[in-house]
Amino acid sequence: MIQKMTESLKIAILLFENFTVLDIAGPYEVLSKIPDSRIYMVATEPGLYANDCGLKVMADYSISELVSPDVLVIPGGFGIDGLLENQKLLDWIKNAYVSCKWTISVCSGALLLGAAGILKNRKATTHWDRKKQLAEYGVIIQNERYVKDGKIITSAGVSAGIDMTLYLLSIIVGDNFARGVQLGIEYDPKPPFNSGIPEKAPKELVNMISKSARITGNR
Amino acid sequence: MIQKMTESLKIAILLFENFTVLDIAGPYEVLSKIPDSRIYMVATEPGLYANDCGLKVMADYSISELVSPDVLVIPGGFGIDGLLENQKLLDWIKNAYVSCKWTISVCSGALLLGAAGILKNRKATTHWDRKKQLAEYGVIIQNERYVKDGKIITSAGVSAGIDMTLYLLSIIVGDNFARGVQLGIEYDPKPPFNSGIPEKAPKELVNMISKSARITGNR
Repeated sequence: MIQKMTESLKIAILLFENFTVLDIAGPYEVLSKIPDSRIYMVATEPGLYANDCGLKVMADYSISELVSPDVLVIPGGFGIDGLLENQKLLDWIKNAYVSCKWTISVCSGALLLGAAGILKNRKATTHWDRKKQLAEYGVIIQNERYVKDGKIITSAGVSAGIDMTLYLLSIIVGDNFARGVQLGIEYDPKPPFNSGIPEKAPKELVNMISKSARITGNR
Repeated sequence: MIQKMTESLKIAILLFENFTVLDIAGPYEVLSKIPDSRIYMVATEPGLYANDCGLKVMADYSISELVSPDVLVIPGGFGIDGLLENQKLLDWIKNAYVSCKWTISVCSGALLLGAAGILKNRKATTHWDRKKQLAEYGVIIQNERYVKDGKIITSAGVSAGIDMTLYLLSIIVGDNFARGVQLGIEYDPKPPFNSGIPEKAPKELVNMISKSARITGNR
């Protein structure tokens, strides 16, 4: 039932200073279960990269060492803003996109796809507090947990990377496999509150979180 | 509304070889938002630790450098089995538990609390596939997403660490703050399938996942 339907699938996850760790961990946990796959942590230069609170994760490879990943994963984080004019990185993303099977982003990572020009006139989403900014790249903004347009899938903020990659898993390997991985990570969510999107939260709270870098962790 | 209700809260998250990255990232993302808090990544020795697929995360401190954290977080992963007789680590956990405000575990991390003897005759939970093993430590196993017993909170597998730490946040800082963090990480889960616990998955799939280290990522 769980079959090897892929062969040596190369998955690249981009690291950068001030990444959001859950943006990386959700997709990592889910995609690492693909049979015959390998995840490469890449960055403009190899080395340790820290999130906004000092958690350090290793990028083993530079982007120039992995020019043709099969799956390209762009996480978000408030460090994303400093990358939006990094031509070397944008060129790598554009080239990787052309040859890869899937290009996906979590949270504000979509901005990097926008800056690379590959979201123009495409449907996509991002963290709720980044939608206006993403729209400036000519993106048709969607209010969905994740959005597939061609071989690009973008997700909403932070935790949405889990839902999106389970969906991608169902496409790459199959529904039953994705169900199995969901069971493996015991993903039967029961948040103690119901305020995960602006539409469900008090307006006052939405305004405050939008202003607070400490809370959103994505500015 | 979002107030500084804590002061220099020291949070220790344990790292070890073959940890589960989502077990760490969920609590990290949520707890790092506590005002005036700091998260310390600790391990028996400082250095880089790899998960089962080679993702490397840095432990900046040895456990002996942080003997009295306020919040102790024990993640799971299949590396946990190799630690259950590590007396130095078990002693550190026991001592940290006595002085700390909260001791929490994600997934199979509960086994380490069990081995340290602090779950005896207490209500607790763990990954569904580890419950029998946890029961051997005299634990009163609960079928809940997370379980609070005194100053210990244990969660179900992997992704449950997000729900548990939002709950802990509501205790430490308040409901509204926890709602704000949930909004910040856009935690409005929409899994594409409904198979996150054994009760909701086909029996055949449960048996297969239970056998497959590659899928559960916790053996």
